[in-house]
Amino acid sequence: MKVGIVGASGYSGEVLVKLLLGHPKVKLAVVTSRSQVGKPLSAVIPAVRGADQGLKFTDSDPAALAAGDVDLFFLALPHGAAAIYAKALVAAGKRVIDLSADFRISDLPTYQKYYGEHHAPELISSARFVLPELTAPAWRNEAKLVAAPGCYPTSMLVPLVPLLKAGVITREHIVVNAYSGVSGAGKKVEEAYLYVERAESVKAYGLVKHRHLAEVEEQLALLTGAPTVIQFNPHLAPMRRGIATTITVPAAKGATLDSLYAAWQQQYAGRPFVQLLPSGETPDTAHTIGTNRIDMSATHDPRTGNFVITAAEDNLVKGASGQAVQIMNLWCGFDETAGLV
Amino acid sequence: MKVGIVGASGYSGEVLVKLLLGHPKVKLAVVTSRSQVGKPLSAVIPAVRGADQGLKFTDSDPAALAAGDVDLFFLALPHGAAAIYAKALVAAGKRVIDLSADFRISDLPTYQKYYGEHHAPELISSARFVLPELTAPAWRNEAKLVAAPGCYPTSMLVPLVPLLKAGVITREHIVVNAYSGVSGAGKKVEEAYLYVERAESVKAYGLVKHRHLAEVEEQLALLTGAPTVIQFNPHLAPMRRGIATTITVPAAKGATLDSLYAAWQQQYAGRPFVQLLPSGETPDTAHTIGTNRIDMSATHDPRTGNFVITAAEDNLVKGASGQAVQIMNLWCGFDETAGLV
Amino acid sequence: MKVGIVGASGYSGEVLVKLLLGHPKVKLAVVTSRSQVGKPLSAVIPAVRGADQGLKFTDSDPAALAAGDVDLFFLALPHGAAAIYAKALVAAGKRVIDLSADFRISDLPTYQKYYGEHHAPELISSARFVLPELTAPAWRNEAKLVAAPGCYPTSMLVPLVPLLKAGVITREHIVVNAYSGVSGAGKKVEEAYLYVERAESVKAYGLVKHRHLAEVEEQLALLTGAPTVIQFNPHLAPMRRGIATTITVPAAKGATLDSLYAAWQQQYAGRPFVQLLPSGETPDTAHTIGTNRIDMSATHDPRTGNFVITAAEDNLVKGASGQAVQIMNLWCGFDETAGLV
Amino acid sequence: MKVGIVGASGYSGEVLVKLLLGHPKVKLAVVTSRSQVGKPLSAVIPAVRGADQGLKFTDSDPAALAAGDVDLFFLALPHGAAAIYAKALVAAGKRVIDLSADFRISDLPTYQKYYGEHHAPELISSARFVLPELTAPAWRNEAKLVAAPGCYPTSMLVPLVPLLKAGVITREHIVVNAYSGVSGAGKKVEEAYLYVERAESVKAYGLVKHRHLAEVEEQLALLTGAPTVIQFNPHLAPMRRGIATTITVPAAKGATLDSLYAAWQQQYAGRPFVQLLPSGETPDTAHTIGTNRIDMSATHDPRTGNFVITAAEDNLVKGASGQAVQIMNLWCGFDETAGLV
Repeated sequence: MKVGIVGASGYSGEVLVKLLLGHPKVKLAVVTSRSQVGKPLSAVIPAVRGADQGLKFTDSDPAALAAGDVDLFFLALPHGAAAIYAKALVAAGKRVIDLSADFRISDLPTYQKYYGEHHAPELISSARFVLPELTAPAWRNEAKLVAAPGCYPTSMLVPLVPLLKAGVITREHIVVNAYSGVSGAGKKVEEAYLYVERAESVKAYGLVKHRHLAEVEEQLALLTGAPTVIQFNPHLAPMRRGIATTITVPAAKGATLDSLYAAWQQQYAGRPFVQLLPSGETPDTAHTIGTNRIDMSATHDPRTGNFVITAAEDNLVKGASGQAVQIMNLWCGFDETAGLV
Repeated sequence: MKVGIVGASGYSGEVLVKLLLGHPKVKLAVVTSRSQVGKPLSAVIPAVRGADQGLKFTDSDPAALAAGDVDLFFLALPHGAAAIYAKALVAAGKRVIDLSADFRISDLPTYQKYYGEHHAPELISSARFVLPELTAPAWRNEAKLVAAPGCYPTSMLVPLVPLLKAGVITREHIVVNAYSGVSGAGKKVEEAYLYVERAESVKAYGLVKHRHLAEVEEQLALLTGAPTVIQFNPHLAPMRRGIATTITVPAAKGATLDSLYAAWQQQYAGRPFVQLLPSGETPDTAHTIGTNRIDMSATHDPRTGNFVITAAEDNLVKGASGQAVQIMNLWCGFDETAGLV
Repeated sequence: MKVGIVGASGYSGEVLVKLLLGHPKVKLAVVTSRSQVGKPLSAVIPAVRGADQGLKFTDSDPAALAAGDVDLFFLALPHGAAAIYAKALVAAGKRVIDLSADFRISDLPTYQKYYGEHHAPELISSARFVLPELTAPAWRNEAKLVAAPGCYPTSMLVPLVPLLKAGVITREHIVVNAYSGVSGAGKKVEEAYLYVERAESVKAYGLVKHRHLAEVEEQLALLTGAPTVIQFNPHLAPMRRGIATTITVPAAKGATLDSLYAAWQQQYAGRPFVQLLPSGETPDTAHTIGTNRIDMSATHDPRTGNFVITAAEDNLVKGASGQAVQIMNLWCGFDETAGLV
Repeated sequence: MKVGIVGASGYSGEVLVKLLLGHPKVKLAVVTSRSQVGKPLSAVIPAVRGADQGLKFTDSDPAALAAGDVDLFFLALPHGAAAIYAKALVAAGKRVIDLSADFRISDLPTYQKYYGEHHAPELISSARFVLPELTAPAWRNEAKLVAAPGCYPTSMLVPLVPLLKAGVITREHIVVNAYSGVSGAGKKVEEAYLYVERAESVKAYGLVKHRHLAEVEEQLALLTGAPTVIQFNPHLAPMRRGIATTITVPAAKGATLDSLYAAWQQQYAGRPFVQLLPSGETPDTAHTIGTNRIDMSATHDPRTGNFVITAAEDNLVKGASGQAVQIMNLWCGFDETAGLV
């Protein structure tokens, strides 16, 4: 099976390239980048020197891509641009896995509020938001177009959804603090992302109105059956990759740490990419770098009545490109872990 | 005026050395360290090469120090050890500023629960916990022994105390997430603090039962008139210095962002070491490194009804040694900022 | 084929574990560590959580390992200890790839000078030092015991050997400066390797008498036919992994940049793990992390008559564990790149 | 005495601001930046929040600055721009200390080769290149315009000049490898300087034709009496500040480590900002950060006949702004260390 990456020169694109070059079931046949046309893949992504299978960047013309023989495309593009490609490719019968925000939100006005104009609103209803460990498996047959979740949303939805479904936590006073490596901002050439500015620095940003909230709260409602408002405080941490998420939430009446872990077990038993640590051990972003895992643990504070839940993942793998490959694996009937361990 | 540092070879001790060598009103006359006796100061703290005024480390015998002509001692010792020195030095009429936990908690059983045996319980009642911007100035005349606040407590008490006093926040659902540079653990030679383990890593630790809570909650009760329980989630971040603290707390009924800032202004107007940033700007630990400042800002989330408060400081300066020098300045009648800007 | 790792809890051991768990031709059957006996592999190496195939650490008894059914052992032990295991395992007919220095030096007095007592001197003559791209292939049939090269030696021998053989550089005035990530020191719990000490720090160490010189100069003599003395200046750089090596050496009379690259091409054409960059592009350690590659380029300075050669590798992969797996692949008739891309 | 900084918004400018705000003998009266006109100093340089003495950025008009009452200006501008300001300010009788390359090279064609057009060639002859520990003191009376040395040149000239003068090293085969923190590139908003690109990365750059060579080789000739060509290999290291320089050079016939140290002692005895470490101890960039020091040591390799010299400094202090303040101190008759310890 041939796959392609549209927009392969950013950080998510680079991780996708590495994963797909080493994938046992697919052949990476096309990589596109408007700014890098004609360059060898390894000239732009030196990490794959000697292993780029002779690939060169081609232009990103939607019609040309639609006319080609590639079966499945990953879109690693900025929001807005992705919808334009999705439109052409879905129309041509290609499978599309979109890593942007364009099809993560089913409510068009909400999308427009955060991201502006949508270039393919007619596709929204046929798109599926797929977080493999949470989304009901029917999508594998229904979807023409899959929206892969964002990095922050993955780190919130995986811990929270089973707990809300099982009723072991309240829906009020959910406070999420998340600390992301700098690659979370993408390859943005701005002063704020210079080495000298970010080294030895932790700071909050985007408080109150962070875009990812729309996606998270929509999914919480869809997956757990009731609207849920959360306080989400994102931060930048001085590291390249990784997201550490700490969630404080009151225990529901009668809920215990055992019932919390039982809810997680019920949802995630046997799922290789969600690892539960015993209470008292806390996940470390460093242990997840390069893996498609999210590690989680929880503790209960009898003084406050809160659960404190901690989660760690690689924002570019489980938070982006690895999860997209996991989606492809499930969609195409491959082993879920193919190319990911 | 002659000052001394007992236990000058740790990270707090090193910052104290630098501050006191450059202080216009005092002469650093004695530095002690059991493990470094006889070595030149700059052999152990190479950052002061050529500027160590010929000082050598002496042994840390309490009686000998008590008999000497130094007027004021800083104790930069592990808890437990500090009390032993405080006892001898206070008895000899020396002023003592203790950077350990030994005299931060006035309730002996609480101290014993977290730290074990106390070696000078009879001194507890005469000690004063002094956070200069919050503690009523009477201590300047009364104190024989001052406990300087810890780094995490400073970063929580400075934002919270005026807001609780003014009633603009609730006492329930206070959630504090703090991210500390690795020096916050002290110069501990353990695998967990190796460069390779901590680089590119963020993780929570000490959840639920962190020692600093005892000190914070006692002070919140004393300074704001009512018991207050907080959820405190400390983390390690991959940087040498700095603490970034993010506090989520429900706004009290009727409280606005303006009333929050008004409460801060009332407490901190004219205080050089507490800087208020406008809502929307968030403090950055990097901007506070090497300064005695704590920078703070706040925002209000109409969706949740919470205030989100962010604060940044250098854990070794405002969170430890700089604050200790500030205390000395006030106690001895020097300019508050002497040696600190 | 079953393989084992003796001493799997250090940094090289951890990388070996990851490589061998994902290797298509071998089964990792045994991992040993005196200090971790009985613990699950993923409890000590959390990076393989969920993918440790149920392995637990066993004790490191040489006789027991010799009696088992594992075909090939990697020794990731301190020098000295490795020889003891090699003795027992080779006697039992096991293949052994040693990552320590114990069998890298064929001259016993030289070994003793740098490392002290040798515990299996009788094995030295049957051991082979194998740098796959440089060692003549006869070793694949002859060897019972292979010494894998060190990280610094790899980064010097790969650039220098073809140039000395081809006579395009002089044997005098070879100056090597190398900058290693902190993992190069191993998992040593010492103050010098604490995060706070190493972050934001570059410094030279081990000048003049670095142990690795013995191995490098012996190989230079063996592989290029004449004794060669080099100036080797190692440094620590504030990063976890990677070695950047810069070599300055006078061009031989009449030699040009073209003749230099021709000598490299002749040796390395078609070798996947040595990548030549065009003159003017310089290798970057970051581009090699996680790969088994060494990247190299060269430039000529007409002002000084020197070539300046730069090389980059991951000290734990091409400089240690990856190269050991590459050796296994060639020894056992697998594809050279199996498990390495 | 009133001083001003033209171009205060870069990294050197920021360090100058901090040093001059705390200087006991001068008043920082003017800070200019074309891009930041009207903003409070602390809005652009948050590190001086609460201590910026109410300063705001003004426009950088040369005529207006020349007409004002400021006595001495620091130019922290890109090369090319600096000459334009120098022209107007010197004509108005102001003292000028230029941190750019514009007046470091007395040979106009050499300047033009590396930097292009010179905007005030008529001033070159009256400008003085001043490295305080090396330049003969007559400049203090003669100079109207002082060129402060660059960061790399300082780290080469301070170790080499006394040794060449004393004849303890050869003039051939001088090999300099230097590793600079990322701030050495200035506040350039380019992909190469993003956090994600530079973290965990060491690489060489600018080999063979680095601009700083012109300045170094001119000074070596002027200060030591003979032309000297050096091999200079600059690198970027993953840290914010600091330069670690390692120099390999053959010992002159009969020279010993003692004669090397004697030559250094003769030049630097009593100079507070050059610190000599005993052979065997190597300087660490981390120990110099924030100081105006350069730390140096040397060792002798009997195998090669080379001396290996290591030096460390803060590229923004002794390598730029601190040295500029040191120059001001000497020029204006202040204590050499005023504002610098």
